[in-house]
Amino acid sequence: MPEAEKRIIETCFSPALFEPERCTDSVVVVIDILRATSSICTAIENGAAGIIPVGEVEEARKYKKRGYLLAAERDGFVLDFADFGNSPFNFTRERVEGKTIAYSTTNGTYIINLASQAARVAVGSFLNISALITWIMQENRNVLLFCAGWKNRFNLEDTICAGACAERLLETSRFDTICDSTLAALDLWSMAKHDLRGYIEKAAQRTRLRDKGLDDCIDFCLSVDLTKKIPVMKNGILVENNL
Amino acid sequence: MPEAEKRIIETCFSPALFEPERCTDSVVVVIDILRATSSICTAIENGAAGIIPVGEVEEARKYKKRGYLLAAERDGFVLDFADFGNSPFNFTRERVEGKTIAYSTTNGTYIINLASQAARVAVGSFLNISALITWIMQENRNVLLFCAGWKNRFNLEDTICAGACAERLLETSRFDTICDSTLAALDLWSMAKHDLRGYIEKAAQRTRLRDKGLDDCIDFCLSVDLTKKIPVMKNGILVENNL
Repeated sequence: MPEAEKRIIETCFSPALFEPERCTDSVVVVIDILRATSSICTAIENGAAGIIPVGEVEEARKYKKRGYLLAAERDGFVLDFADFGNSPFNFTRERVEGKTIAYSTTNGTYIINLASQAARVAVGSFLNISALITWIMQENRNVLLFCAGWKNRFNLEDTICAGACAERLLETSRFDTICDSTLAALDLWSMAKHDLRGYIEKAAQRTRLRDKGLDDCIDFCLSVDLTKKIPVMKNGILVENNL
Repeated sequence: MPEAEKRIIETCFSPALFEPERCTDSVVVVIDILRATSSICTAIENGAAGIIPVGEVEEARKYKKRGYLLAAERDGFVLDFADFGNSPFNFTRERVEGKTIAYSTTNGTYIINLASQAARVAVGSFLNISALITWIMQENRNVLLFCAGWKNRFNLEDTICAGACAERLLETSRFDTICDSTLAALDLWSMAKHDLRGYIEKAAQRTRLRDKGLDDCIDFCLSVDLTKKIPVMKNGILVENNL
């Protein structure tokens, strides 16, 4: 591909920084690795028919009443009327195979809905990173790496996953970036990648999960390429886009 | 000071992420090193009586009509009714000594006004970093390092200056941080500090300034400790707080 036709990578660190009008022709990759997007990748790997991202608690309650399997949490705590919460270990094949799951979390499902104006919306995590990069290449569009952050704030873990994605895309020579956020993500990833678990130790969300006894899934969420399936948005539902 | 009494460092990467209600008891350090806060430090060093941060273009016009010296730019271009623009080289002793200057820029003066609810507001840059750290220590409050960014987006140059400030504060052992933005700023600073000019080469604002022929001041803006004066907000005007 000639230099002039390179696709552009941008990174957004928080929903408060998201500019929906700038991504109507782009692929948006939603990243919330602790734990929403890791869980969605796990659910699709385990045969879930689809995931409906649900923003508000009351909306989640309605889905439950209509008979959907409901996964829902706020600040790490399972909503009392939900079937289960936000750990990827909940989304077992026994529970999810063939089912459409309504899913509502503090940050991740909110930004999936924010990105709905994009040309394509996919769910990214370390669990599906290689397949994701292959899929993005096939899409051949500009890419926005959209980090969920935490309650509108920047977070480290999503940023380093965005940096890992950006590094792989740049290695193909078919992408370029002039975005300071992407450059920062790349540099932070370059510091983190040789000891990912050690680096994540200092992240605020790591501490939050540990304080609530929810940190058992962190090693799992930092595992690379456990699935080749990419959850992508179709008609408001995240479904499998197998390569 | 006992461990429990350590003051907290937080970093905000963009005005879109700013939470004014969280800093009413804090020192807010405003950072927009290319070029607003470097220029303000230069003006105060050169004897300016005060700097009035002005948000809107029309407000800037009113200050000019009322007889103030006016420094004003948008996107690097001098407003046609202003006396001069945003380069620190404009703020010479001959021009500014004893004068109160109305000052309006694309990002920097906007966030100075956003921070007005803070207990103390100071202007930071590499030009005054050592004096700034000493002053913050004397203030003995929690600190928010508030990066101007660029039109609500994250930028590299302000982030690494925030990282430099955070590093110095942490070295005193009187501060701590659990803020992912501060941890990221520290890591980016650790990568940048051995070749600051080289690192800044990749920043988007570096390219913007070069494209407009405004990059002559970059070496100056990356110079450390050219002044011991800290511009601090008093009654809506930035004035000298000499140590």
